[in-house]
Amino acid sequence: MRSTHERAGRVRSKRLPREVRERQILDAAVEVFSQRGYHAASMDEISEVADISKPMVYAYLGSKEDLFAACIRREATKLMEAIADGVAEAGNSPDEQLWRGLRAFFGFVGEFRDSWRVLHRQASAQGGPFAQELGDMRKRAISLVAALLINTAQDEGVGAAATGQTDALAAALVGASESLADWWLDHPEESAGAVAARLMNLVWMGFGNLVDGHTWQPPKGS
Amino acid sequence: MRSTHERAGRVRSKRLPREVRERQILDAAVEVFSQRGYHAASMDEISEVADISKPMVYAYLGSKEDLFAACIRREATKLMEAIADGVAEAGNSPDEQLWRGLRAFFGFVGEFRDSWRVLHRQASAQGGPFAQELGDMRKRAISLVAALLINTAQDEGVGAAATGQTDALAAALVGASESLADWWLDHPEESAGAVAARLMNLVWMGFGNLVDGHTWQPPKGS
Repeated sequence: MRSTHERAGRVRSKRLPREVRERQILDAAVEVFSQRGYHAASMDEISEVADISKPMVYAYLGSKEDLFAACIRREATKLMEAIADGVAEAGNSPDEQLWRGLRAFFGFVGEFRDSWRVLHRQASAQGGPFAQELGDMRKRAISLVAALLINTAQDEGVGAAATGQTDALAAALVGASESLADWWLDHPEESAGAVAARLMNLVWMGFGNLVDGHTWQPPKGS
Repeated sequence: MRSTHERAGRVRSKRLPREVRERQILDAAVEVFSQRGYHAASMDEISEVADISKPMVYAYLGSKEDLFAACIRREATKLMEAIADGVAEAGNSPDEQLWRGLRAFFGFVGEFRDSWRVLHRQASAQGGPFAQELGDMRKRAISLVAALLINTAQDEGVGAAATGQTDALAAALVGASESLADWWLDHPEESAGAVAARLMNLVWMGFGNLVDGHTWQPPKGS
């Protein structure tokens, strides 16, 4: 944490725009909440890591509870942007779109483990208003995934069997991704690509193909 | 609740064995926690619904916190028994085993919505020790599903592609099931069989087959 502190210290100035200060506070808060847990995290430490005075932290982002909720919202938004960006880079084939989305999700979790811990483990462990906040974010994620699935289905001219169930399928896919990402926190030896490929195999190929020995291979360079 | 109260009242007796009394208390607690939420639920109401005096409730199952944790453990165990029983009734084919397991899970959630609300929504919303309890139950569920998948894979002589990833696949499958069951609470118009068939299609056929218009059909009478 010291290095973050010193790095932030170099740019400390009364004339920093509000959005820069808010970003410093949120960066520090995600780091401290992830490492200490919500209860043990202190506003003193967040203020020190952010190199922003404690009254300023309260003035900008409110109480510790408000700050934690702001962390959940910001990190969830970053995660969803990463997924949407990943899919936008894909070609039109539905397997590539799904693969890019999953790859972006696990890439984000791997790169920003602090974010994922705050989002998933800490927010779940706290419950109360944070569970509500997390529930709202899950709903947004399900809507995003459902929109991506509908796009894919339309491109492919898919019939009622698939399009009628996009919301339910999106809920299943989001739940599977969350649960597998949580499993991954305890198995950090796997790469993001390997974990994403596991889920891709399950949801694209299905167990029916897996038990027959058929698997799905990621395109080169992902 | 009145009817439960009256029904329980008829069998009230000082000579009831402890396990009968504990069952009455837990039945009442699941009902009250599910309907009121953890905070609003009162030990007075639980005692009244169970028709067991409040000191006896405390003597048998401890504080409200202990009682809620006992509810989570009992309902999770019932749910896992239902899944294991469902799979035990299936023949040897892996698709039937998976189908029976999913069907049993969604059948349980549909039949015991109070149990599911306590297990999933209330425990998540509370966080703290209950989130821990719920996390432990999820781990047991993942182990159960992984054991079922390994059985299936061995029966089919499946290669490394599938057997090496049973834990991760089980985590994904448990997450997908939970998330879809949660979606179902908000879409109660669907039958348990229809919701189970949606997930079966996703995880057995895979999106690859779904976008090609192929679907999986449940066997008759399930």
